[in-house]
Amino acid sequence: MKYILVLLLAGLTSNAQIQKEQLNLMPWPQGIVLNEGNFALSKTFKVNITGNPNARIFGAATRFLRRLDGRTGMFFEQGFITKLNEYPTAELQINCQKSGKIALYEDESYHLEVKKNQITINATSDLGALHGLETLLQLLQNNGTSFYFPTTQISDFPRFTWRGLMMDAARHFQPVDVVKRNIDGLAAMKMNVFHWHLVDDQGWRIEMKKHPKFIELASDGQYYTQEEIRNIVKYADERGILIVPEIDVPGHGSAILIAYPEIGSKVIILTGGTAEKNIQGTAIATYGIERNAGIFSPTLDPSNPKTYQLLSEIFDEVCPLFPGAYFHIGGDENEGKDWDANPKIQEFKKKNKLNNNHELQTYFTMQLAPMLKKHGKQLMGWEEILTKNLSKEAIIHSWRGANEGVAAGQSLTEAVKGGYKTVLSSGYYIDLMHNVESHYLNDPMPKGVELTAEEKARILGGEAPMWTELASATTIDSRIWPRTAAIAERFWSAQDITDMTSLRRRLETISFRLEELGLTHISNKNVILRNIANNQNIEAINDFSNVCEPLKGYTRNKGGIEYQMYSPLTLFADACTPDAKDALAFDNAVNQYLVNKSPENKAKVALFLNKWIAVNKTLNELSNNAPLIRPVLPLAQKLSEASLQLLLVLDNKPTLKGTDLKNLIEQCNTKDHADVELAVYASFKKLI
Amino acid sequence: MKYILVLLLAGLTSNAQIQKEQLNLMPWPQGIVLNEGNFALSKTFKVNITGNPNARIFGAATRFLRRLDGRTGMFFEQGFITKLNEYPTAELQINCQKSGKIALYEDESYHLEVKKNQITINATSDLGALHGLETLLQLLQNNGTSFYFPTTQISDFPRFTWRGLMMDAARHFQPVDVVKRNIDGLAAMKMNVFHWHLVDDQGWRIEMKKHPKFIELASDGQYYTQEEIRNIVKYADERGILIVPEIDVPGHGSAILIAYPEIGSKVIILTGGTAEKNIQGTAIATYGIERNAGIFSPTLDPSNPKTYQLLSEIFDEVCPLFPGAYFHIGGDENEGKDWDANPKIQEFKKKNKLNNNHELQTYFTMQLAPMLKKHGKQLMGWEEILTKNLSKEAIIHSWRGANEGVAAGQSLTEAVKGGYKTVLSSGYYIDLMHNVESHYLNDPMPKGVELTAEEKARILGGEAPMWTELASATTIDSRIWPRTAAIAERFWSAQDITDMTSLRRRLETISFRLEELGLTHISNKNVILRNIANNQNIEAINDFSNVCEPLKGYTRNKGGIEYQMYSPLTLFADACTPDAKDALAFDNAVNQYLVNKSPENKAKVALFLNKWIAVNKTLNELSNNAPLIRPVLPLAQKLSEASLQLLLVLDNKPTLKGTDLKNLIEQCNTKDHADVELAVYASFKKLI
Repeated sequence: MKYILVLLLAGLTSNAQIQKEQLNLMPWPQGIVLNEGNFALSKTFKVNITGNPNARIFGAATRFLRRLDGRTGMFFEQGFITKLNEYPTAELQINCQKSGKIALYEDESYHLEVKKNQITINATSDLGALHGLETLLQLLQNNGTSFYFPTTQISDFPRFTWRGLMMDAARHFQPVDVVKRNIDGLAAMKMNVFHWHLVDDQGWRIEMKKHPKFIELASDGQYYTQEEIRNIVKYADERGILIVPEIDVPGHGSAILIAYPEIGSKVIILTGGTAEKNIQGTAIATYGIERNAGIFSPTLDPSNPKTYQLLSEIFDEVCPLFPGAYFHIGGDENEGKDWDANPKIQEFKKKNKLNNNHELQTYFTMQLAPMLKKHGKQLMGWEEILTKNLSKEAIIHSWRGANEGVAAGQSLTEAVKGGYKTVLSSGYYIDLMHNVESHYLNDPMPKGVELTAEEKARILGGEAPMWTELASATTIDSRIWPRTAAIAERFWSAQDITDMTSLRRRLETISFRLEELGLTHISNKNVILRNIANNQNIEAINDFSNVCEPLKGYTRNKGGIEYQMYSPLTLFADACTPDAKDALAFDNAVNQYLVNKSPENKAKVALFLNKWIAVNKTLNELSNNAPLIRPVLPLAQKLSEASLQLLLVLDNKPTLKGTDLKNLIEQCNTKDHADVELAVYASFKKLI
Repeated sequence: MKYILVLLLAGLTSNAQIQKEQLNLMPWPQGIVLNEGNFALSKTFKVNITGNPNARIFGAATRFLRRLDGRTGMFFEQGFITKLNEYPTAELQINCQKSGKIALYEDESYHLEVKKNQITINATSDLGALHGLETLLQLLQNNGTSFYFPTTQISDFPRFTWRGLMMDAARHFQPVDVVKRNIDGLAAMKMNVFHWHLVDDQGWRIEMKKHPKFIELASDGQYYTQEEIRNIVKYADERGILIVPEIDVPGHGSAILIAYPEIGSKVIILTGGTAEKNIQGTAIATYGIERNAGIFSPTLDPSNPKTYQLLSEIFDEVCPLFPGAYFHIGGDENEGKDWDANPKIQEFKKKNKLNNNHELQTYFTMQLAPMLKKHGKQLMGWEEILTKNLSKEAIIHSWRGANEGVAAGQSLTEAVKGGYKTVLSSGYYIDLMHNVESHYLNDPMPKGVELTAEEKARILGGEAPMWTELASATTIDSRIWPRTAAIAERFWSAQDITDMTSLRRRLETISFRLEELGLTHISNKNVILRNIANNQNIEAINDFSNVCEPLKGYTRNKGGIEYQMYSPLTLFADACTPDAKDALAFDNAVNQYLVNKSPENKAKVALFLNKWIAVNKTLNELSNNAPLIRPVLPLAQKLSEASLQLLLVLDNKPTLKGTDLKNLIEQCNTKDHADVELAVYASFKKLI
């Protein structure tokens, strides 16, 4: 048979009664009862809204209708929903008691009931109703001819109040449409915070009317206008999403200091005079937009009143753009190098009895709190802001782990025990290309630590940071999705929802459905592969990409200088993703075979191995007209050689000695080619 | 061999000397000399700009570098180009004598010379240099390991000064990113006009600060803010593109009349009183946003001074958004039904000695000319505005043809003979899904008509209209590209560049390269197919889509009421395109076989036929879990049955009688299924 069929279990026979475990819900609801029977969809299906909701429910219900329309091709009669109680007899009744506020601790619960002839969503606020509509879309089933919802009762609410994604728009700038489609993705996954990293060494991304120098000198023309920001804030509000802006200070300061070098900490020592009389002076250093990745020294001068004057003016212009109650001031990775070398700053420390740079940074941070409070904003910062004199009102963003030489999430425990509210990002760094399991099983509630109920309550939730040193507008969606959907489940669903098999099964459908929001995590892969293959057939390079994963952690772009922040990312590693699809399928086949060496199970393993031998051959042929394929050839060669030997092993006819075979397999563990690694190495080892 | 290799002839051996005919240039340049040898690209490749260009060249040269970077994975050192003469020894030297103006009749010529160690682009203005950069990108060659440009001398300039695309944002609204990426596509194809159809019966799409009712009542919230419009105008300017806005009046008036019904032409006759005394009166009709496709009666009242007052105010607000010298006022398809039925309008006609509705419309049009002139704008309209009293300053947009009961392009000849400038759109209606050949061979210069040199000079060029009754943001790119690239060549290149084989060969590479601009004409096909297949394997449905074409002309969405303007377009027909890929390849195979019935040629034909039999089988299996596949099954069945019989014919073992076989093939000519037709019907007929 030429085409591999992936026939889903559900719906093969007419309206087969589906089991709860077969539903592709994500995040999994807190309570669900599945009944017998179905609600059949038809062209006249209508929505009616009652109660006292925020007007955002009208747009949300309209988008719900259009998405359902797109999936079913039904061309529903109902167009734009713009008022209450327009169709009192509509099949879908949505009732909300009150208007939801885009803030923490709002009641986001909903009750969804699907009966045979009626669907109801009841929610305290429209925010809950929005979640209910997403759940209803996920409930959609079909057989061969029609679409329907199974009769169900769902009661649902989030476990954590902060369920966020951070997007870095400073490294590779991310245009408005990228931001919007990802906000749609967040809403679909019942997340509620979009943390927008807008300023870093590599660029200032906010139009500033009173300080035009920022965008003139530090944006390369790549920034959001204030209208675009307002427009995105409104877009997010309509989808129940709070936007938390970040301006990272006092470190990561290049972009600010390009425009205002006079508030930088770096001093240049000038020497002159004669042999007899040596004259020394200092000059202000100048700064440039950082083009590489890494931690850099440009830092604001905390001893200079002008620093605070400028920051105060910045907040006065930026805060009104964001109606939310939180403002992130960064505060991370300030190494204090320029502080230590600046005599004026050292003097300032002494005068103010600040014993070290941490205390100096706390002094700095505390100056910002009232500037933000003036605009009704609470200060949030990365965990480095946490020192003894920090106000308890600050929110601690816990991020460091083994790579930074500390225990993962250690600051989270310290923060809550110290009386601070906190959000966990350690373990959710989706830019680092770790597999979905590592993120999914990472709980914001620390294990093995005794916490009181109050301390636990200070853990607001978690946030997945998407840094963009290695992600462009073309590739970022595939770095965020589908893994962030699993993280969303961790933040929303009950703590004991941890089954990886279920997660993986559901994630495949969820990932597919996210495409309808315009997300390009699936479709842009072929765009990159076509470019690599120079418009030759991409089947072989695609097959190969399905067993390769981008290098993990901080091992790609060594030293941060291979790629510049303006470089497009169009290499093989940019087409690959964590959780390489065929690697997982192969591992399952290997495991089955090792349990039962039946001819069928053997054939399943051999099918993969033979495919990879063919892939290598084809890639070599294609590379004659595609230089971008060349860097992957050594790895494809190793995969092919190992596959060939493993086929012989399967047939009990190995031609290599044990150690030679082992060496051959070990070569598949290389990280030296094309910024990727073979994801089948562990499975190969099982076979020898 | 598992993978079908498409190995291009070029570059198989190290830096093989390429022939002129192998270059994938489009539009084909006016003059080209290919020399021996190559310019080799390296990481240190740099660009330098001299002369007195407009600053747009800096951005254009920077984007050129990034696109070259994306194709080659070279990570060029040079980042943003922001000033003149930064690298006097750079390999690529661009010199422009003056700043180009975004207007007609500008000198867009350029000379591009590639030597072994140096590349130069010399142009009168930066507009020519922008074209030169696009040509240089198209010249890029590679062998198995490296990228290079062949040494060349190119002298180039456009044949016509107006080379446009019209996009309808009124029917299916097209978001900002859709507009921007298509403007990039236009620039890549050396087109220079983006005609933006912003108002029609189905919506008003321009934010109006003084008349907020337009967007409140007639946009469904889908409109461009004034900042977005300014931003797009700037974006277009940076790419050498003139934007011509259109507000369609006096017909197509629903959106205007929803907000201001008092200037509508429709009257409602009220009757009352008693049996003895009959009282008659009139009332103003109310209007609604039109949800269907078609020609509708709502028309502005040309006898009402308030109409001109409002239009004047509209132009006062809209004209300053668009610095270009042209404003399109529509003027098409005004059927005059409401005019005829309105006694006040009839009286006005009499009083003003206007003999018919055409003269009344000219009266109307002539009122608008000074309103536009006040803002430095020349009036342009669809050909219906052409009547005897029309000012010679108006530009006539020739569009009608056989479907409208007139000879195609007849108005173009009438216009130029009458002293009017004109732009041709008849024959370039890309929304109608005709094949690329029909557009490519349609010349703006009429055949068989004697024209003087002056008359010829009044033919400004042509424009491809993309109406969006059947195109959403997801599908519009595949309706525009790649066919518009062929149209671009018609408008730019010499009249005798008409070879279809060459066009088709070049178009395949050009289409692929347009992806790098973010255009989704290739990638969104699989997005739609995945939805249709309900996330099952899409190979079979994709294979089937490659022999199906959407119904042509006005035969889809019969009566304009099957789909509403808010409906997503996610059906099989939306995934299909004209010039079905496999149909063309199959036809070539059939033609070869008929010339020489060798076993090899026979096998090539049989390969397709066997594939289609398998496709039908697989589609049937997939449809058990994908209702959206079901509508295509009858057609797949016909294709399969015909293929089976044709295989027997190839083997000289037909089991059907001649007439039965003919009937079977005739069934492949159906247009009754899934809004598509089989594009292999004509080839099938050749085989029997």
